[in-house]
Amino acid sequence: MINVAIVGASGYTGGELLRFLKYHPRVEVVAVTSRQYAGIPVRKVHPHLHEVDLTFENHSPADIDADLVFTATPHGTSMKIVPELVDRGLKVVDLSGDYRFDDISLYEKCYDLKHIHPMEAVYGLPEINRNKIKEADLVANPGCFPTGAILASLPLVKEAIAEKIIIDSKTGVSGAGIKPTDVTHFPNCSDNVIPYAVTTHRHMPEIQEKLRNYGKVNVSFTPHLVPVIRGILTTVHCFPIQEVTPQEMWEIYIETYQNEPFVDVLELGEIPRVSAVRGSNHCHIGCFEIDENGRLVLISAIDNLVKGASGQAVHNMNLMCGFTETMSLEGVGLHP
Amino acid sequence: MINVAIVGASGYTGGELLRFLKYHPRVEVVAVTSRQYAGIPVRKVHPHLHEVDLTFENHSPADIDADLVFTATPHGTSMKIVPELVDRGLKVVDLSGDYRFDDISLYEKCYDLKHIHPMEAVYGLPEINRNKIKEADLVANPGCFPTGAILASLPLVKEAIAEKIIIDSKTGVSGAGIKPTDVTHFPNCSDNVIPYAVTTHRHMPEIQEKLRNYGKVNVSFTPHLVPVIRGILTTVHCFPIQEVTPQEMWEIYIETYQNEPFVDVLELGEIPRVSAVRGSNHCHIGCFEIDENGRLVLISAIDNLVKGASGQAVHNMNLMCGFTETMSLEGVGLHP
Amino acid sequence: MINVAIVGASGYTGGELLRFLKYHPRVEVVAVTSRQYAGIPVRKVHPHLHEVDLTFENHSPADIDADLVFTATPHGTSMKIVPELVDRGLKVVDLSGDYRFDDISLYEKCYDLKHIHPMEAVYGLPEINRNKIKEADLVANPGCFPTGAILASLPLVKEAIAEKIIIDSKTGVSGAGIKPTDVTHFPNCSDNVIPYAVTTHRHMPEIQEKLRNYGKVNVSFTPHLVPVIRGILTTVHCFPIQEVTPQEMWEIYIETYQNEPFVDVLELGEIPRVSAVRGSNHCHIGCFEIDENGRLVLISAIDNLVKGASGQAVHNMNLMCGFTETMSLEGVGLHP
Amino acid sequence: MINVAIVGASGYTGGELLRFLKYHPRVEVVAVTSRQYAGIPVRKVHPHLHEVDLTFENHSPADIDADLVFTATPHGTSMKIVPELVDRGLKVVDLSGDYRFDDISLYEKCYDLKHIHPMEAVYGLPEINRNKIKEADLVANPGCFPTGAILASLPLVKEAIAEKIIIDSKTGVSGAGIKPTDVTHFPNCSDNVIPYAVTTHRHMPEIQEKLRNYGKVNVSFTPHLVPVIRGILTTVHCFPIQEVTPQEMWEIYIETYQNEPFVDVLELGEIPRVSAVRGSNHCHIGCFEIDENGRLVLISAIDNLVKGASGQAVHNMNLMCGFTETMSLEGVGLHP
Repeated sequence: MINVAIVGASGYTGGELLRFLKYHPRVEVVAVTSRQYAGIPVRKVHPHLHEVDLTFENHSPADIDADLVFTATPHGTSMKIVPELVDRGLKVVDLSGDYRFDDISLYEKCYDLKHIHPMEAVYGLPEINRNKIKEADLVANPGCFPTGAILASLPLVKEAIAEKIIIDSKTGVSGAGIKPTDVTHFPNCSDNVIPYAVTTHRHMPEIQEKLRNYGKVNVSFTPHLVPVIRGILTTVHCFPIQEVTPQEMWEIYIETYQNEPFVDVLELGEIPRVSAVRGSNHCHIGCFEIDENGRLVLISAIDNLVKGASGQAVHNMNLMCGFTETMSLEGVGLHP
Repeated sequence: MINVAIVGASGYTGGELLRFLKYHPRVEVVAVTSRQYAGIPVRKVHPHLHEVDLTFENHSPADIDADLVFTATPHGTSMKIVPELVDRGLKVVDLSGDYRFDDISLYEKCYDLKHIHPMEAVYGLPEINRNKIKEADLVANPGCFPTGAILASLPLVKEAIAEKIIIDSKTGVSGAGIKPTDVTHFPNCSDNVIPYAVTTHRHMPEIQEKLRNYGKVNVSFTPHLVPVIRGILTTVHCFPIQEVTPQEMWEIYIETYQNEPFVDVLELGEIPRVSAVRGSNHCHIGCFEIDENGRLVLISAIDNLVKGASGQAVHNMNLMCGFTETMSLEGVGLHP
Repeated sequence: MINVAIVGASGYTGGELLRFLKYHPRVEVVAVTSRQYAGIPVRKVHPHLHEVDLTFENHSPADIDADLVFTATPHGTSMKIVPELVDRGLKVVDLSGDYRFDDISLYEKCYDLKHIHPMEAVYGLPEINRNKIKEADLVANPGCFPTGAILASLPLVKEAIAEKIIIDSKTGVSGAGIKPTDVTHFPNCSDNVIPYAVTTHRHMPEIQEKLRNYGKVNVSFTPHLVPVIRGILTTVHCFPIQEVTPQEMWEIYIETYQNEPFVDVLELGEIPRVSAVRGSNHCHIGCFEIDENGRLVLISAIDNLVKGASGQAVHNMNLMCGFTETMSLEGVGLHP
Repeated sequence: MINVAIVGASGYTGGELLRFLKYHPRVEVVAVTSRQYAGIPVRKVHPHLHEVDLTFENHSPADIDADLVFTATPHGTSMKIVPELVDRGLKVVDLSGDYRFDDISLYEKCYDLKHIHPMEAVYGLPEINRNKIKEADLVANPGCFPTGAILASLPLVKEAIAEKIIIDSKTGVSGAGIKPTDVTHFPNCSDNVIPYAVTTHRHMPEIQEKLRNYGKVNVSFTPHLVPVIRGILTTVHCFPIQEVTPQEMWEIYIETYQNEPFVDVLELGEIPRVSAVRGSNHCHIGCFEIDENGRLVLISAIDNLVKGASGQAVHNMNLMCGFTETMSLEGVGLHP
């Protein structure tokens, strides 16, 4: 049994962490912090957590007494909190972008921010870093788009099948966070499709840096907001530089992910859809089709708040703490 | 450990039964039947059940070998299957309307159908029939609207607070089942509100018959289709025939449901919303307000496929089989 | 040809006024004001008005030179602007609540605000006040809920059919205005039903005051937010105090509205739905059913931004200026 | 004044034709045909056309007496009707795929159908064929995806900027027609993103054939179903084969479309969204961004039922009949 704290628990990722940890047999949540909601019961902010008997507190990092801490704080804030926690010997899973980059200057450029406290961290995508995560004190939980994009593209890079990949993603609105904005206002984004940060999204450099550990690749990335609460559907387009067939592609993916508990390679002819993974920690990958002009298409689907955030964070915790890695993440998707 | 079969498992309630039973520690699902999809793997029909390794079969009732059977079949079909199963000594939870009515002539009138095989059955709303359900061989799982409506109205009738209640319900589209129709076609029901069966819905007599066991009451009921996948929000309007205050009303509800694991009476001032119970077996009840003209309002929220169907069916199974009654139904709602 | 100004043109009702006035053959829009967006082209705020070549200005009322002004300003603001405009001899259609009430103390109570400048105004529901509107200098455009509710209930009161009516309304999210809030954040209100101001909505006293001009009546009103962009579906429940049949009810409505260009009484058996009036100035009324317990149901559907706001305002302008009353409002709904 | 008939008027494109023709000052609709709904008033099928006083008839082509006919019939059906109408001297705008292809064998391959009656037809995209359309007896109205894709890509091909283009489209569900299917069932497609015909959609060869009239190009195309009623958002990705800047790209598009009444090239920095053109005949084009890896992105937005179908068909009629080309198509989009 370990004691866990969640810093910044009033957002959507905080709510999802609590949803998964509530029935985790090896975890007790001992503190949930929020400056804005200090003193307020959790269920007033997260109406689905009616039975969670916790109240937000306004703890400073120094006051947090736990074995492991999830920092569900914005980028720029995490870097002010995480180092002290790690120095005090606590394990940390950070859900912000602050510790995801190997190249700090790349981070500083795309987040337009000076990094005041870089530290060694493991990029928390278990499918590529499982063993390092097991030994880590600080895990940087991947971005939501990078999770779906890297899993769909990795074998293309590893096997030198493509050197230029175009990633066209469609994301649910919860990816924008719990704070209302003009774009997330229902009358604006319902019944609409809204491309944004078309060539400049921060997740592009994250995807590219991670994939370049496995081969030569240029990544082009464009996200679109669609009227969906949860889910990211990622369409990867590329022109292979070696001859491949759909069957061969499929076999490569099957082999790559055969032991992965949360990556499901669909059968040839099956196409991922976000509803199949709604609320679950699974990533569906499928398609493997090649058109008459030689373009190859791969598609992945994840829940941005689960495999793209809090579910993956719990997965990382399970690995860091030596628990069965699927513990409390077994649930299937909610469809319809 | 018991063996369970699901007859008619290709619909939404079948999919939900499988979602809950997959991790039930005391249940093994040994057969799932579907005439239409015989020979097809379950996950081709229920894309979220990617890891469920079952295939639909075209069993007749005589071939079903199990301890308990869920009949997720349409009304008119259940009456042809259930009696044989019960006679063979199997326990049955029937999700159709066929065994919900005490008054067969009322059933025959509102379903416009001759009942070819009436049997004794317990109406499976655990909050009113827990002990009878524990002893039952055949449980008639309540309709979705009646579940939300009865739980919200019961104390009004029991305490003789109102004799005429008006129930205005708003339902998600999954309540119409898995078969596409003109009304459920996305361009028709998205961005729309569609009242239907305004004074003639079959669930009205079901609600009224059950409530009249507890007092004198006339029930008026109107459902509306709203662009929501899951969920029923039920608004109960009435003019109390005795003087009550919101505080007194609230206390009555708190007392009525204090030991119920799946009925949550919200605090005064809190209003139920369907997202808080999405995917979960909980019913939220709240409001208790009285306006200047003396109208009292009660509101309940359920997930029509869970507390309104398959979750409640699993709850009934737990009671019938002597399991902990919340087993495998612990999950909280999926919000956002 | 008249010159028209719109004060507070950056909100949804401002956008709708511009949509209808763009092709109005007798109107030129000479000024659109907005403090927040002064200097910004209209199409930056209203992306559908790409071809409208106007820029928001920060005019004070004294600077507005026009024959008629629409004040699409919040309650509390209109009372500071309207009197000066009227005193200067301009005709005004005010879209706020400030001039809707005959009883100022009722206004002050339900808006929790001191009225600093009451004036004589005509309540701008053409179906009841057509002739007065033609002579008016100041028209108070009705609230969105009252428009749908009064049109559906008026004959019940006029003919003394019911003395207690319960109005259960379902509204699209654009009714909350253009400013994002927690409730209108897509992940919160999509796939959800959210009752609010269950017994305390400001539109209840407005409905009741107007109906009481025609007979004795108590109005109970509850609104629900549904995941719809535009539209209000109003369900009126009552127990008639005289004997009526659906056919008689229908005849009363047909007769009441026979000459109304924007009220369509559907045939017996037809039920209104909001998509049928999406974007149009029509109000559909239907149902007329009576259930076995004697409850009568009436249903109306409007577009809250059109018949419930800007379309009706243009209708009022047409009447005030002696134009054909349907001018530029002829368009049918957008379905699907 | 001309007499117009609509064959196959019970679908969504039929409803939209009626919406636009109702107030067309030079057109009288004299017949609307539907085998399925013969004898039924139009407004029973198209609830928004409450005031359209027409009834579906079951006419054979020989019985149609009109100056111009819209054939809103499925592919395979149009080829059986259109030739007789043209031979009798009627002008025809065909909304199916039957007459869109120059290369009949390509048509037969991708529609998997023998063409029993090829005829000369003009491809009805006014932006490329305005003069030919004016002289045509038979106009083949473009597909919905091709309309948005060709308008967004044409300058890339004409100016030899790209030879391989990847088109990733997101379409509203009304594109699937009025007939309900599993995919269009609300609980399936709401809150979901569903890629389909990923490398095999029939509109790809249509797009490619038309663009190849202007230069060398390979087109790769993938559509995705998103939970939107109307609208297509098309994202065009390419790697330019000559050096271009965003500013230069923008100028090329501005120049190409400067005289087009229905193509709006947005300013640099503005991004199209489907809500801005909802219900209108406009196509918005924007983006012109180039990422650090040299990928250029263009984006277009149309309403699939208007510019992608019936609005464009009315535009073609206006050209064929010598009317002002924007007649009855002036309306702006419905936003929000």
